[in-house]
Amino acid sequence: MKDIFVQSNTNSYHITVGESIRFQLEDYLKKDYSSILIVSDENVAALYLDDILKNFSDKPIFQSVVPAGEQSKNMQTFYQLQTDAINYALDRESLIIALGGGVVGDLAGFAAATYMRGIDYIQMPTTILAHDSSVGGKVAINHELGKNLIGNFYPPQAVVYDVETLKSLNEREVRSGYAELIKEALIADTDFYHTLLETDIYNLSNSELQDHLQRGIKIKAHIVEVDEKESGIRKHLNLGHTLGHALESDLGYGKLTHGEAVAIGLLFSLHVSEQVFAVEQPFEELALWLKNNRYPLSDIDYQTDRLINKMKSDKKSVKSKIQMVLLKELAFPVVEELKDDDIEKYLNSFIVRMV
Amino acid sequence: MKDIFVQSNTNSYHITVGESIRFQLEDYLKKDYSSILIVSDENVAALYLDDILKNFSDKPIFQSVVPAGEQSKNMQTFYQLQTDAINYALDRESLIIALGGGVVGDLAGFAAATYMRGIDYIQMPTTILAHDSSVGGKVAINHELGKNLIGNFYPPQAVVYDVETLKSLNEREVRSGYAELIKEALIADTDFYHTLLETDIYNLSNSELQDHLQRGIKIKAHIVEVDEKESGIRKHLNLGHTLGHALESDLGYGKLTHGEAVAIGLLFSLHVSEQVFAVEQPFEELALWLKNNRYPLSDIDYQTDRLINKMKSDKKSVKSKIQMVLLKELAFPVVEELKDDDIEKYLNSFIVRMV
Repeated sequence: MKDIFVQSNTNSYHITVGESIRFQLEDYLKKDYSSILIVSDENVAALYLDDILKNFSDKPIFQSVVPAGEQSKNMQTFYQLQTDAINYALDRESLIIALGGGVVGDLAGFAAATYMRGIDYIQMPTTILAHDSSVGGKVAINHELGKNLIGNFYPPQAVVYDVETLKSLNEREVRSGYAELIKEALIADTDFYHTLLETDIYNLSNSELQDHLQRGIKIKAHIVEVDEKESGIRKHLNLGHTLGHALESDLGYGKLTHGEAVAIGLLFSLHVSEQVFAVEQPFEELALWLKNNRYPLSDIDYQTDRLINKMKSDKKSVKSKIQMVLLKELAFPVVEELKDDDIEKYLNSFIVRMV
Repeated sequence: MKDIFVQSNTNSYHITVGESIRFQLEDYLKKDYSSILIVSDENVAALYLDDILKNFSDKPIFQSVVPAGEQSKNMQTFYQLQTDAINYALDRESLIIALGGGVVGDLAGFAAATYMRGIDYIQMPTTILAHDSSVGGKVAINHELGKNLIGNFYPPQAVVYDVETLKSLNEREVRSGYAELIKEALIADTDFYHTLLETDIYNLSNSELQDHLQRGIKIKAHIVEVDEKESGIRKHLNLGHTLGHALESDLGYGKLTHGEAVAIGLLFSLHVSEQVFAVEQPFEELALWLKNNRYPLSDIDYQTDRLINKMKSDKKSVKSKIQMVLLKELAFPVVEELKDDDIEKYLNSFIVRMV
């Protein structure tokens, strides 16, 4: 068990990855809170909520359980959490615990960021994918016109990551999480990238999993320390997300998991990087590994015009120009603004290559 | 025209109080924004929106006009502003201008704080009351169970206060605004308090009004610099607000204006201060001035039990104990936690005194 320390502009906090640490939560609280609200979803609550409750016998503790899935990141569920917090009489000395995947983390984090103009919260991720979203303080809900459009930068007080809670993940969830680990490796750590390419993600030891999570989180944490508000290098974390977000949204959430869509987006970034910089990229190598690990790469319904429009309305775009993170080489990401015509050309040749 | 400079933890900005400065907005923008959204209400838009539009001929400029009144500080209107911002393709380099009173400032400020996790905004207050809310970065909307329960601390990039826009205020609005000036004087500036007690608020020269606003804002700005997140002395600004908020909510918003409710709350604070510290307070003097300036002080329907419950659920309360700001003497505020029984006793004797 190792701690990673994050010092951001607005807050500093520890990220702890370990086994069974969900039973020692008191160790990770920075102060004596007046009351605690645990926010979770139906699936995670059934498995781990009782474990968390056992930590706190001496103070008022409440729970809000939301439906599982992306659709809970909406205005109605957000408002319901606010109602719960008021009805449970949470005050400015209360704590919210986000127990679950990225949806719960983003939703509960945004509720904490806005309840009475902001109270403390901690992240307890229960998916591999959430190693990414639980670090860095990005919290949000979706607007019906786009993902994560309503939110804040609001760092947690701690991230407590019990890898035992990852044992209940199914194959799709493992796949989804590893796509973000591959992304982090691609932008910052060539060694880690090669390690991952030798990994069978469905046969992981606890120590392998911990090691991968820690390496991914370190990359993320370092970037967030330098650029919390995403005015510079934090944009590199969007590698694979320009097309990834557009695909996820265009196909309808749930058709592809976030990570599955990002995996395709990563290949697209490598494809575009090859064209723009006229250098070879490990496109085929990564595509093969993704295929071996059963990522859905073929039979995708690419609607070129719609995808381009969605990429233009991404919140990372400025003046409706598409910005993409590309790789000059492994671990050397750059942000490039692309013309619509070029994007269309690259997308068409990418689709041909993916068949 | 004088500038007041605020250096908070997260941002620094200028507050400019002057005449006709709504026509020179370019001078107050910190950078070249990609587009601008002006948020206003129906009343203010009819009077001043065109003046603001004249400032910007060279870039995309949009408007969102919401219904006038407190009821616009709700989730639906907030969501509509987000929809507008998306449809107008605002990006992270865009600016929101909040043109109006406290409702517009709080609502548009919260929209800016959360749109794509936060874009720049400036405050253009058009009421006297908003001298208070436009400075300090508190932005929020109401929950149906309580005022300002959903929000952020998110400072503006500038406050541009054109006193000419105050000429259209009616008597109630002038009264409402001066209650907060009296509050600021009571907590921090005995001279200013005596000046105000010699003022007929319905016959003000432009220079008197500017002077009063600047003195009030200076007090507010100083407090916000020291304690942006309200963990200490910022609480002093709640003088008069414990009962004020409860009354406003219990009678139904609109029955009393915010300032009228705060005026009664100020008298209550002086009343309780007399009991708790056994010192004389300028209760009668202030009550007389308020009466002379036609503040509604009698014929108020005090529902003691309901008021106490509302005071307990105020977001400044901790563990459901009522905290009140009291005065040991003029310009010497302290925060005291009061027992429910004592509050009830003080409230009953206050009601008798107010008949």
